[in-house]
Amino acid sequence: MSSHLDPEKIDRLAEVAVRTGVNLQKGQDLIITANMSALPLVQRIAVHAYKAGAGLVLPFFTDDAITLARYENADDASFDRAADWFYEGLGKAYKGGAARMAITGDDPMLLADQDAGKVARASKAVSIAGKPAMGPIVGFEVNWNIVAFPGAAWAARVFPDVPVQEAQSKLLDAIYDASRLDGADPVQNWADHTAELKTHVKWLNAQNFEALQYTGPGTDLRLGLAEGHIWKGGASPALNGVVCQPNIPTEEVFTCPHAYKVDGTVSATKPLAYQGTVIRDISVRFEAGKIVDATASAGEAVFRDLLGVDDGSSRIGEVALVPHSSPISQSGTLFYNTLFDENASCHIALGQSYADTVAGGSELGEDELKQKGANQSLIHVDWMIGSGDVDIDGITRTGDIVPVMRKGEWAF
Amino acid sequence: MSSHLDPEKIDRLAEVAVRTGVNLQKGQDLIITANMSALPLVQRIAVHAYKAGAGLVLPFFTDDAITLARYENADDASFDRAADWFYEGLGKAYKGGAARMAITGDDPMLLADQDAGKVARASKAVSIAGKPAMGPIVGFEVNWNIVAFPGAAWAARVFPDVPVQEAQSKLLDAIYDASRLDGADPVQNWADHTAELKTHVKWLNAQNFEALQYTGPGTDLRLGLAEGHIWKGGASPALNGVVCQPNIPTEEVFTCPHAYKVDGTVSATKPLAYQGTVIRDISVRFEAGKIVDATASAGEAVFRDLLGVDDGSSRIGEVALVPHSSPISQSGTLFYNTLFDENASCHIALGQSYADTVAGGSELGEDELKQKGANQSLIHVDWMIGSGDVDIDGITRTGDIVPVMRKGEWAF
Repeated sequence: MSSHLDPEKIDRLAEVAVRTGVNLQKGQDLIITANMSALPLVQRIAVHAYKAGAGLVLPFFTDDAITLARYENADDASFDRAADWFYEGLGKAYKGGAARMAITGDDPMLLADQDAGKVARASKAVSIAGKPAMGPIVGFEVNWNIVAFPGAAWAARVFPDVPVQEAQSKLLDAIYDASRLDGADPVQNWADHTAELKTHVKWLNAQNFEALQYTGPGTDLRLGLAEGHIWKGGASPALNGVVCQPNIPTEEVFTCPHAYKVDGTVSATKPLAYQGTVIRDISVRFEAGKIVDATASAGEAVFRDLLGVDDGSSRIGEVALVPHSSPISQSGTLFYNTLFDENASCHIALGQSYADTVAGGSELGEDELKQKGANQSLIHVDWMIGSGDVDIDGITRTGDIVPVMRKGEWAF
Repeated sequence: MSSHLDPEKIDRLAEVAVRTGVNLQKGQDLIITANMSALPLVQRIAVHAYKAGAGLVLPFFTDDAITLARYENADDASFDRAADWFYEGLGKAYKGGAARMAITGDDPMLLADQDAGKVARASKAVSIAGKPAMGPIVGFEVNWNIVAFPGAAWAARVFPDVPVQEAQSKLLDAIYDASRLDGADPVQNWADHTAELKTHVKWLNAQNFEALQYTGPGTDLRLGLAEGHIWKGGASPALNGVVCQPNIPTEEVFTCPHAYKVDGTVSATKPLAYQGTVIRDISVRFEAGKIVDATASAGEAVFRDLLGVDDGSSRIGEVALVPHSSPISQSGTLFYNTLFDENASCHIALGQSYADTVAGGSELGEDELKQKGANQSLIHVDWMIGSGDVDIDGITRTGDIVPVMRKGEWAF
């Protein structure tokens, strides 16, 4: 079905996803979610997972035609339903030690022509029902990983000017390069890359900044950091002790902002593709952590709906730094896919924070986390605010200003 | 992917499966299991299910390459594992009102070259873990249905002498005919067919036989019937009140034998395709319901393993009558698929009985059911013992002999 794609490249992507990405352990079950279009990758992941000693490889597939069949034919009541029993079961599987892999690369515009209200309701229903399944992932209780496969619809969106099979090949090449799969030993590539990310993580943690100050075109933002925030990046151990690379590719170092101490204005530097809508030229104003004013030149209504999902959806839960010279940024490609676009630019995420980006966070209750500034929400949506024109300073506990990034590059 | 198949026929099969087969109710979720090769049918089922008011259509797919990846690469310990959490979740979904559809048509020989011991262990692990999911189906608590799709590997097995696409078309035609989809109104076809089956059901229930006597080449069997056995066939109401056709096609009327009152010898009249092995010329001897001697000209070891799964796997849990003139029998085709082959011939099933084939059975505990003669086992495997050479008599409570079938045809 995608036999025109280089099977060697797909196999190498699968092997790195299993060995370096999720770092599957002997006897561990592996739960995979994927679009049907990613079947060739899932098949190779299954081979490498079983070679690594997987207990069971359990793939769950979505299919675009079946998804559309719902939007085009279902009763209105369908859009508030979600399969609670399935998400509860996934949560149980993770608690029982299963690892998690998600294949991304769905058609980013699949639902573009569908009723946005129904799309939002269906998504909210899954967010609510999905809590037991998302909890162990957001809390980094188990080793997990996301990788991408160049499905036809996605590829056609990224490279609209070439025939679709060529677009898929080009996108596979882009994934291959961004995922550092080239050369004699991709596993070593990733060890080197992680070491590089760790130097930035170490420096930022040593600074223990109170806040970051972003300055650039349309941006003047003081972004407070959570009490006891921890910068992370590259491979790190999940609470089950397994060192994994949650994202392939990854270029970011990230931490927990203070959801109640963000003030000023910030402008997006790239479009945000969200549930079939491309939201362009986002500009927002924060007051005490909450977005109180938001505009966009396209998709503004969808963006406002997103902000209105719950209290935490108009606050931020993640802040991430990515140099403007990162390979994905330099490719100049807009991928319409968070896994890639977020690694092209400094970004922030609306919504849920990661408990493990606060010291001892995994042991804390919701109220204690909130006290430290961690955010809680049904959503987690990254958007890009970095470019070659943005400077970032760290503000120390004594009010000193320390350059962190200049013109989008590390300043230390 | 199967675009050479007639989309009209696939759509009609989907519509009848949803409307007449599972008879999906407004607001009901529909859980579908299917091989990846049946995707074109599942997509059309999703459309008809949502048109019928489905809450959610939830398809779960298996993939042959992923299944083989396990047998070819997994550690030995993998073969005793099953995804308990998933089957528990399915059970919960059925208890919560979801309906169930299974698409059959997998490659019957997929595991033919794999270690039979591993195949048996994996199957047993699924049978054990799967109990919460099988219980509500075996107990007929919810409306359910099985239909077939002509996957390439299955079609190539049934029609080995033609190119595979032609084999798929031929098999689709055979499914279409056997599933009574022709003519102006397939739903009416099924109403007529059910009425015909009900005349036999009614007569057999009025007789309330103590036992059946089978006489034919290699067969001299007295088969006791369970106390309070009920003959069933065609559409009937599940315990949730929804009238459904569990099997499409179906030609059988069936009931619960007495698992401890079967004596004599019986010879299979068709091969049995079981987990990649074709078991030929089965001949067994029963004593007090238990198979005490079994031979086969091919696959005997696999058959013996099957008998040895648990105590109930060497006893029978279902007896079914099908006239030798049934359309599937007359097609002369061996389908290597129980849904078709069992509808070509009188058959019995090793293993688990259906609680609803004993009066009040759904309300009875395991011990009470056993007292009445119902069988309990992890397996349920149908095999064919009818032909144009087999006569069947009913033995009444007073010892009278009443002809039931003569030379494979109804005698009443």
